[in-house]
Amino acid sequence: MIDPPHGGPSTVGPVTERSPGSTGDYTLGQIGEFGLINRVARAVPQGRAVLLGPGDDAALVSASDGRVVASTDLLVEGRHFRRDWSTAYQVGRKAAAQNLADIAAMGAVGTALLVGLAAPADLPLSWAKDLSAGLADEAALVGASVAGGDTVASDTLLIAVTALGDLQGRAPVTRAGAHPGDLVAYAGGLGWSACGLELLARDLDGPKQAFARHRSPEPPYEQGPAAALAGATAMLDISDGLLADLGHIAEESGVSIDLDAAAFPIADQLRETALQLGIEVLDWVLTGGEDHALAACFPPDAELPAGWHVVGRVTERAAGDEAQLVTVAGRVWSGARGWEHFA
Amino acid sequence: MIDPPHGGPSTVGPVTERSPGSTGDYTLGQIGEFGLINRVARAVPQGRAVLLGPGDDAALVSASDGRVVASTDLLVEGRHFRRDWSTAYQVGRKAAAQNLADIAAMGAVGTALLVGLAAPADLPLSWAKDLSAGLADEAALVGASVAGGDTVASDTLLIAVTALGDLQGRAPVTRAGAHPGDLVAYAGGLGWSACGLELLARDLDGPKQAFARHRSPEPPYEQGPAAALAGATAMLDISDGLLADLGHIAEESGVSIDLDAAAFPIADQLRETALQLGIEVLDWVLTGGEDHALAACFPPDAELPAGWHVVGRVTERAAGDEAQLVTVAGRVWSGARGWEHFA
Repeated sequence: MIDPPHGGPSTVGPVTERSPGSTGDYTLGQIGEFGLINRVARAVPQGRAVLLGPGDDAALVSASDGRVVASTDLLVEGRHFRRDWSTAYQVGRKAAAQNLADIAAMGAVGTALLVGLAAPADLPLSWAKDLSAGLADEAALVGASVAGGDTVASDTLLIAVTALGDLQGRAPVTRAGAHPGDLVAYAGGLGWSACGLELLARDLDGPKQAFARHRSPEPPYEQGPAAALAGATAMLDISDGLLADLGHIAEESGVSIDLDAAAFPIADQLRETALQLGIEVLDWVLTGGEDHALAACFPPDAELPAGWHVVGRVTERAAGDEAQLVTVAGRVWSGARGWEHFA
Repeated sequence: MIDPPHGGPSTVGPVTERSPGSTGDYTLGQIGEFGLINRVARAVPQGRAVLLGPGDDAALVSASDGRVVASTDLLVEGRHFRRDWSTAYQVGRKAAAQNLADIAAMGAVGTALLVGLAAPADLPLSWAKDLSAGLADEAALVGASVAGGDTVASDTLLIAVTALGDLQGRAPVTRAGAHPGDLVAYAGGLGWSACGLELLARDLDGPKQAFARHRSPEPPYEQGPAAALAGATAMLDISDGLLADLGHIAEESGVSIDLDAAAFPIADQLRETALQLGIEVLDWVLTGGEDHALAACFPPDAELPAGWHVVGRVTERAAGDEAQLVTVAGRVWSGARGWEHFA
């Protein structure tokens, strides 16, 4: 601990003793950070899986099948969200969604979130509360809640979310089980987030759905367990772009994947917006990140649940094929393929 | 995602294609961040509770009693550690320790860690690897391992750790169960971390243990489950100082706590160092944070496990007593009581 050891008292004084800033809002620095996330989370009803919620050293969450699925993600201001592009509520929805999508992609149902908030002292208290509301509302979509967290001061605004989930007795669907001959399919939206980002970057108007999906993706949570029950051999959520993410399945499964560009059901609005911007719409669909749709492979004779679109096939990996694990009509896609976070 | 959607490829090129910096070390920016924590963690043997480790959308961890204990903490450079005061390995030990101490404080045994690393692009790769080694070694003390994680670019160096644990059928020991008449006891070291911090801040030499404990606390992990088995009515780990943290037990349990200053076994080295620095040694012991000792309340007739020191009693809370929930010989301690992270 680098803070002065003889700083202020650790008890949080009543907010009314201090004055709000010029915006009429308190800052985290004014109210003291102690247990902020826990205090905010305590005001929200807990999901049925949360046996002990915020306020203790740790949360206690039901893991009814004797195992727990767990995933963690960081969101950094300026890289994963911008306060001038997204409200705190939207950032909260997004932070929860991208983690809960990881849980769904294993075939599991989310049970609880743990949230770390690193924030500058001048962050308005209302921003933190709205963030918590977004986290809570997104978690509630799967019956989960924010079961605990931590708040610290930091020059960089950052949100760390860990999601827990329950497989309810199902086998986990990893990235490593795809076999040659399997169908490749996806569920959820593709390309909308990339479209929204492009419109925001160019300061243009466009389809509401594009902005909404970029600010807060809408993962098809129920499709994860549904795919698992339908016999999915491999699954993941699409965070870096369909081609890049299918590359992970191909790599882990030791196979190749070939997609059929004509098989993608592309909404007219998305197609028209791409046309207006001079962008190949398939570039958004195939390489756009952050839609948090689910992609999965299924045995050729599987009955896919409603909402899944077959867009390709798993093939044998030819020798020396590592550079082109995922192809479109047999050829390497010439557009961009995701990006490096440090690039 | 604010990164340019048409950035570089997402596949991580072989490190040998690029040149290390002037220190002979690669940076995160050079190797690309993609899956760094997962890749490093994959090289380490997993604990027996980890059914699926790094490399997929989520980890799968055994939760043998049908519940999982979960806690999350953030460590920010400049606030919780300094790279010139602690090695990356020590920061890793500390980050794991403070989370695993939370798990122990519920009466549980840690099973897995999930680690988020937010780091500047110029962070040496060796620093991240040493951090991972520290995390892994500390986790191994309880049979746990790093089961997954995330790495992102950030101006601020920050580590987000989530620890999972297993109560092995025991009831969780919360902060809310203390009763008047209960004994108050602690296990582990107290004051050493504060002593080390003071020495570092004044650039002085002193007992090795003080520096070591400040850089990497040594929570008495096994004492958590042992205290639970011995009937502990309330427990927590001491992160903000004994008085401040016992205040949480008093608050949650609706009681007061009175400590006996003479009951603390204080090491000669600690006492002498305090004397040399002109500091009241009890100030370190009672208010020093980050030792991650455990404090607990026990029924008056409980047989305390070896290693627990009785230092006080739980009392009825008198009306209007909120300002002095924790006293020493009946009086409010006049020293500092922890500090506010945003103060």
